[in-house]
Amino acid sequence: MSLSSTEGTRQIPLSKHFLAGLASADLKPEEILESVSIPHSRKWEFVSAFRQAQCQQNALADMNAAMRVLLKEGSDTIEDLSIAYGGVGAATISAQKSCQQLLGRRWDELMLVEACRLLLDEVSLPGWAPGGKVEFKRTLVVSFFFKFYLEVLQELKKLVKLSSVSGSCRYPEISDRFLSALEDFPVAVPQGVQMYQSVDSHQPLQDPVGRPIMHLSGLKHATGEAIFCDDIPMVDKELFMALVTSTRAHAKIISVDFSEALELPGVVDVVTAEDIPGTNGAEDDKLLAVDKVLCVGQIICAVVAGSDVQAKRAIEKIKITYQDQEPVIFTIQDAIKHNSFLCPEKKLEQGNIEEAFEKVDQIVEGEVHVGGQEHFYMETQRVLVIPKTEDKELDIYVSTQDPAHVQKTVSSTLNIPINRITCHVKRVGGGFGGKVGRPAVFGAIAAVGAIKTGHPIRLVLDREDDMLITGGRHPLFGKYKVGFMNNGRIKALDIECFINGGCTLDHSEQVTEFLILKLENAYKIRNLRLRGRACLTNLPSNTAFRGFGFPQGTLVTESCITAVAAKCGLLPEKVREKNMYRTVDKTIYKQAFSPETLIRCWNECLGKSSFHSRRMQVAEFNKQNYWKKRGIAMIPMKFSVGFAATSYHQAAALVHIYTDGSVLVTHGGNELGQGIHTKMLQVASRELKIPMSYMHICETSTATVPNTIATAASVGSDVNGRAVQIACQILLKRLEPIIKKNPEGTWEDWIEAAFEQRISLSATGYFRGYKAFVDWEKGEGDPFPYYVYGAACSEVEIDCLTGAYKKVRTDIVMDACCSLNPAIDIGQIEGAFIQGMGLYTTEELKYSPEGVLYSRGPDEYKIPTITDVPEEFNVSLLPSSQSPLTIYSSKGLGESGMFLGSSVFFAITDAVAAARRERDIAEDFTVKSPATPEWVRMACADRFTEMIPRDDPKTFTPWSIPIA
Amino acid sequence: MSLSSTEGTRQIPLSKHFLAGLASADLKPEEILESVSIPHSRKWEFVSAFRQAQCQQNALADMNAAMRVLLKEGSDTIEDLSIAYGGVGAATISAQKSCQQLLGRRWDELMLVEACRLLLDEVSLPGWAPGGKVEFKRTLVVSFFFKFYLEVLQELKKLVKLSSVSGSCRYPEISDRFLSALEDFPVAVPQGVQMYQSVDSHQPLQDPVGRPIMHLSGLKHATGEAIFCDDIPMVDKELFMALVTSTRAHAKIISVDFSEALELPGVVDVVTAEDIPGTNGAEDDKLLAVDKVLCVGQIICAVVAGSDVQAKRAIEKIKITYQDQEPVIFTIQDAIKHNSFLCPEKKLEQGNIEEAFEKVDQIVEGEVHVGGQEHFYMETQRVLVIPKTEDKELDIYVSTQDPAHVQKTVSSTLNIPINRITCHVKRVGGGFGGKVGRPAVFGAIAAVGAIKTGHPIRLVLDREDDMLITGGRHPLFGKYKVGFMNNGRIKALDIECFINGGCTLDHSEQVTEFLILKLENAYKIRNLRLRGRACLTNLPSNTAFRGFGFPQGTLVTESCITAVAAKCGLLPEKVREKNMYRTVDKTIYKQAFSPETLIRCWNECLGKSSFHSRRMQVAEFNKQNYWKKRGIAMIPMKFSVGFAATSYHQAAALVHIYTDGSVLVTHGGNELGQGIHTKMLQVASRELKIPMSYMHICETSTATVPNTIATAASVGSDVNGRAVQIACQILLKRLEPIIKKNPEGTWEDWIEAAFEQRISLSATGYFRGYKAFVDWEKGEGDPFPYYVYGAACSEVEIDCLTGAYKKVRTDIVMDACCSLNPAIDIGQIEGAFIQGMGLYTTEELKYSPEGVLYSRGPDEYKIPTITDVPEEFNVSLLPSSQSPLTIYSSKGLGESGMFLGSSVFFAITDAVAAARRERDIAEDFTVKSPATPEWVRMACADRFTEMIPRDDPKTFTPWSIPIA
Repeated sequence: MSLSSTEGTRQIPLSKHFLAGLASADLKPEEILESVSIPHSRKWEFVSAFRQAQCQQNALADMNAAMRVLLKEGSDTIEDLSIAYGGVGAATISAQKSCQQLLGRRWDELMLVEACRLLLDEVSLPGWAPGGKVEFKRTLVVSFFFKFYLEVLQELKKLVKLSSVSGSCRYPEISDRFLSALEDFPVAVPQGVQMYQSVDSHQPLQDPVGRPIMHLSGLKHATGEAIFCDDIPMVDKELFMALVTSTRAHAKIISVDFSEALELPGVVDVVTAEDIPGTNGAEDDKLLAVDKVLCVGQIICAVVAGSDVQAKRAIEKIKITYQDQEPVIFTIQDAIKHNSFLCPEKKLEQGNIEEAFEKVDQIVEGEVHVGGQEHFYMETQRVLVIPKTEDKELDIYVSTQDPAHVQKTVSSTLNIPINRITCHVKRVGGGFGGKVGRPAVFGAIAAVGAIKTGHPIRLVLDREDDMLITGGRHPLFGKYKVGFMNNGRIKALDIECFINGGCTLDHSEQVTEFLILKLENAYKIRNLRLRGRACLTNLPSNTAFRGFGFPQGTLVTESCITAVAAKCGLLPEKVREKNMYRTVDKTIYKQAFSPETLIRCWNECLGKSSFHSRRMQVAEFNKQNYWKKRGIAMIPMKFSVGFAATSYHQAAALVHIYTDGSVLVTHGGNELGQGIHTKMLQVASRELKIPMSYMHICETSTATVPNTIATAASVGSDVNGRAVQIACQILLKRLEPIIKKNPEGTWEDWIEAAFEQRISLSATGYFRGYKAFVDWEKGEGDPFPYYVYGAACSEVEIDCLTGAYKKVRTDIVMDACCSLNPAIDIGQIEGAFIQGMGLYTTEELKYSPEGVLYSRGPDEYKIPTITDVPEEFNVSLLPSSQSPLTIYSSKGLGESGMFLGSSVFFAITDAVAAARRERDIAEDFTVKSPATPEWVRMACADRFTEMIPRDDPKTFTPWSIPIA
Repeated sequence: MSLSSTEGTRQIPLSKHFLAGLASADLKPEEILESVSIPHSRKWEFVSAFRQAQCQQNALADMNAAMRVLLKEGSDTIEDLSIAYGGVGAATISAQKSCQQLLGRRWDELMLVEACRLLLDEVSLPGWAPGGKVEFKRTLVVSFFFKFYLEVLQELKKLVKLSSVSGSCRYPEISDRFLSALEDFPVAVPQGVQMYQSVDSHQPLQDPVGRPIMHLSGLKHATGEAIFCDDIPMVDKELFMALVTSTRAHAKIISVDFSEALELPGVVDVVTAEDIPGTNGAEDDKLLAVDKVLCVGQIICAVVAGSDVQAKRAIEKIKITYQDQEPVIFTIQDAIKHNSFLCPEKKLEQGNIEEAFEKVDQIVEGEVHVGGQEHFYMETQRVLVIPKTEDKELDIYVSTQDPAHVQKTVSSTLNIPINRITCHVKRVGGGFGGKVGRPAVFGAIAAVGAIKTGHPIRLVLDREDDMLITGGRHPLFGKYKVGFMNNGRIKALDIECFINGGCTLDHSEQVTEFLILKLENAYKIRNLRLRGRACLTNLPSNTAFRGFGFPQGTLVTESCITAVAAKCGLLPEKVREKNMYRTVDKTIYKQAFSPETLIRCWNECLGKSSFHSRRMQVAEFNKQNYWKKRGIAMIPMKFSVGFAATSYHQAAALVHIYTDGSVLVTHGGNELGQGIHTKMLQVASRELKIPMSYMHICETSTATVPNTIATAASVGSDVNGRAVQIACQILLKRLEPIIKKNPEGTWEDWIEAAFEQRISLSATGYFRGYKAFVDWEKGEGDPFPYYVYGAACSEVEIDCLTGAYKKVRTDIVMDACCSLNPAIDIGQIEGAFIQGMGLYTTEELKYSPEGVLYSRGPDEYKIPTITDVPEEFNVSLLPSSQSPLTIYSSKGLGESGMFLGSSVFFAITDAVAAARRERDIAEDFTVKSPATPEWVRMACADRFTEMIPRDDPKTFTPWSIPIA
């Protein structure tokens, strides 16, 4: 490296000197890095580098390595050797001693074994090492060297061939089946086909329903012109708020001292629970902590200052003394042990499970652990509260899926009637369920600050705080006991699930209910018992998340199927087919439905993915490759849409036609990026029979449409669409006499005439909602208006030495019925699939043994990026199905795609199973999601995993603890 | 005066030295005025001061004077004399020469005559003197001295009596009838009684309708907490706009050079007609002038800068070159001469007028001139336009009576659909018709600036610009020819009116129509012809103003009645009674109505005011006082309410009930201070049967209630009340099943249940409006939904020497039917009466011969203040009348009270007539409104008015010209 400063230039070789971390090798403040010079390697010198990260791209490496060997010319004798590892300690580590000892050795299998021994000895990681993944990293130390070993051999072979220095017999041969170890997965540009039915040729050109209209904010999202909450220009006299959170998981608050903070420049005030004029949240779920804290990240108070920097600086000066309390519970296992639950068990049962177990050929029991998930919306939680000077009015701009809830919470917190509070939502930069409940908390705290100071308050969580404070998807621990015949027919199934609810109830009871209601997925199992409980732990409260329990729970069901298949020696897909609903039937909760389109999706997916032939190709690939394995899996899905309560399906709209004929549509749904506004204008356009260019939606506001329901549960466009439709129909009905009188007139003519003739051009539309209920006593009900069916087939390839994988191909067939907008719907399916894939593969939340979330940003928490998309990614909408219940016979597709991401998970486990079969290791491993490279590597046990030292868990405190 | 500075103190005597205006008598920048020392007058020294202003208080004097005389002890010989006048020239003038010449003269009648001659000679004013009122001021020069003369005599009389120095016979006697000349009108705290019927005792306590609920913003208006448009906090990056207006009345624009302005600090841009993306107003009424200007004050372009100061500074640097055009028309007379009219004549006729004139006892012809009126809303025109960055959305906060019109105008100006533009009106600081049309112009120009610069634009007119740019009430010139019998019965009446419309059409055609429709007032005249025309002149366009032609036009009718009474030797009230509608009848335009409550108002007013006995007392007073006269007059009123077009009566509301039971009401009316929001909540409270405390109105907005009609024509509360009522009734109807099921429940219970049961808690209310039309071809129709009747009796006292007057007492009886809110309604009646009184007495717009408005602020234009309110001011609402058409049988009272202010005018003319009768001057003078002190003084011709020099009008250009 050439460094340059006013005092001249100097060179620092990236050698021992540098690796030793000597101060003289540090960049001085006045220096800049001018250039890096990489010397050419010599003829008999071989250099290579290795890295393994949670994702293939856009990720910091868990571990990397650089290796270089110089062989004596024309020989296989090591003349010089350098090996350095990153990710093992605080800085890059050079395995100097090992290299020294290997000098003069020949480049052969014996050297490899010795090198591994030496390296593991020298490059050692304690069991408690920061960053965790200790055994994985130990394995990589030798796995990487093995890769280097093979690479050098391969290069030598080429060199010998070219220069014909001497006989190739001098170097060890590499088996062809080993060659695949040499190849890294290349970065590929994903490709795919989106298939949907075009609209009927008789549909008027003007009518946009069913057409792939681009998201109305699509271009603005791309250019950055779209205004989100924090893009709202600075408001006069506005102040910034930053939150002070607990650093203890369960403690009494002895004192809070913010005197020093108040003295800092720009600091205006500190807001505590005592400043709340009304209700401080619920008894068990306070907005601001009083006396005690129940998790790390719980909000204790808030600093209000002139700028965000000032506010955050002040936070560091606030001194809180705690007295730790017992018990401290983080894991589901501990919660079960302490009988620490948030609500009673939820249970559904049919048939006679005990009897059935007695009659089956085999019984298998298993456990499934599904980790949580961070919502990782692009736009973190944020709110701008503007207090008016009159009548206690407040204007609140907030990133939420449920403005009415924010409004109501602020109302009770401030003890101000709801009619004084207006919540505005122009658009939300992703919600995924994380902006159903939580925005009200931030809104209310900011509102308290606004009332206390009399200033507008802007509260914008940075990513770190957002991840720390807000919970996400509930981690799940599931146990199943399944009884089945040798032909794969499941006769009895008993599933018990526990979810980690965190420290407050939030939506945990409903999530448990939905989990249980949806757990049977696509399968008809006559003797079935499903039980679920939500655990109370000292973690931030988990909450609603796209799929609402379904993606976690159903992984148990599908894992169970996979286990049955393994026991029966059948393809899992065969067992799936055998147990799938086939005819009009009733669910476990006795809701009648027809699985016709489920079967059609399954069959279409089988066909479109060429499943059976590819299944054979995968087997063939696996036969020919030892270090790389492929897996393929196909998953069916029956997803129930909607809330299990009728009152939650109500929706409303307000449609104005102005005197120039332009139309302003307002409805109760929030634009979360899912394109609801685009769809609503399609509906209005069809109903009013005028082009979408006449229409506009400005924002969602509690002042135009009151008492709205959260935009959630996949029904946003559906129910609000019905409301918009009704409003437009009312308007068109009013216009009819005018149109009849002047059928040749233009829209503008009619509107002008209507105004002249005193016909109201403003109408509310109200949709009462789908009937939905569950009787948990009886275990039956009609909880969902309809089902979305789908199937997904995914194929992956794994690198057994590193745990890396690539997604070869995914095919999805989804029953969208008559899609309102296939472009948007397929986007939703793709997005949900990818988010599901993230849940099941790379998104891993890490907690310290003290309950502190480590993964608080994109560096530590890996959501899929463009390079994680399957190389071939096809989505088809099942043509011409019908669902007369919904608007234009469309279906809500917001959540369902999520679970189809599990096809990638099962493809990975399929590949791992292939590796294990080859290595004669038991196939029935405990299922753990996400299936990270770490998990894959360790599951693909081999001579390297056996080589590494193992620690006695009792002898150390690990860096992180599993909470599912 | 003691002046003080760091250099010490000095005294300046307010003597010759000072009056001579020497520089040494000027206050130096470093000096402060420390004290003013007023020497005690000596025994034989008499000092007095005089002032006469347009108003008694809160007004700069038209003229004032200070006089001092020192008599030789025990004699009436003038030893020393000082007389100084203010208001005659640029500075105070000392009549030194006259005083000098009067030394040694005795204080007697001869000296008075000589003094007057000398003073008129020395304190001379040219005919063209700035400030005008030349003859008035000349008269005051001597009138003041006459007062001083009398005062000294009076003092001498006392002195002699006390000290019995010598016989009082030495000094001239003052007649008792002259004594009143000595008294100034004292400032009195007005007192009054407001009478209205209390609500039925069975009306639930909760029901606020009919109760005197305080204006909901009343306290906030008083404390200053109420937020008006310019109280909206600064918006991020906002810029200020200032308007550049024409300085020529009729000219071609040769060039506009703003290069120098653009170079000033803070100046961002200049907005011209070329920047308008859409339509630049109408062809004849452009937003920004193109090529030519039609009046002084016409907007040519606008400067956008960082602050208002910067913008205004820049305006001065913009160079516009004009080429004057012919003709230049300012007066109605010139317009008639040039046949310069804005629209065709409007005419109504009944009977056979020519035939009737042949059969009458007498015929009188007369002319009436009514000056214009400035709206003088507390809040001048202002708008804040905030451009959004997306979809060309604009948020407009504007002080307007008609937000939909602003929205529409901005839409066409910017060529952006209406649905992108939201206009917000929280409240308006007074409209009076001046914020019906004009705010759209300012909104559109500001919007062009906002679009051009991309910044929010704040445009706030200062009072001077507001008065200069915006027109007001149409000045009127009326001619009547009336034929009547000697008993006062009018047989034939022919009235022709011309209004000065200014340079564009604006509302002038409608004002002409309304004028003609309302001109008959309360009188049934079988042979009647009413004609009206609007003149096109080179003045800012006149526009809507409370009463919309009625207050001007009906002054002609009532003046005619007064003239008839004079000719018949009858009381005007007798002639009024004789010709008033008595039974169910039809108006001249053939609309049937019953005058029952008109008659009741008249009779109640006669009674309550003790008219007949006070009429006698007035006569007695006048007999006993020569220099003070009293007058009394009573005026009946039939005022038609509403727009003469059905589509203008439509109104809408949007009512939300939130889940906590609180209610948000939005409706199409704008709060102009008239209390419409208070009334609307009273309506909602009655309809929903819950207290007003549950209710809130936040603002009027085009996003909640579209396509609204201007809040005008007295029907705002009426039609919007109907809309609110309908919305509430819809909501209550929906709640009925729930209430029936749980009749003991609370409102909150019901609302909670309704939400659970999915009953929409949001409803639009739409009132289609009253039917109204006129067929101008046939001269008939049904233009108004109903009439408001009233009567007012006023008594005044005038000072014949100065023209000053005080309002002794006013009694008003008004038919409000069942007032929605008597507190607010009486407030409206009082406010309108006072504004009318201002129109008819002190509000005087002065124009230069070049068409430049002089009176551009409260110094030059006198609206009534608290000290102008009649000393006794009683308002009664006629009890228990019915009008089943309107909401709760109430009546709209926004405008009607205006005309009742004319009772003060007729009382003044009655007093003047008494003076003239006594002085044997013809009683039939040309009626001129306002009856200013100047007019009163000059009409009370006497020896002093005869004394003054008169100028030949041909020899000079007067300072100002009359335009009516």
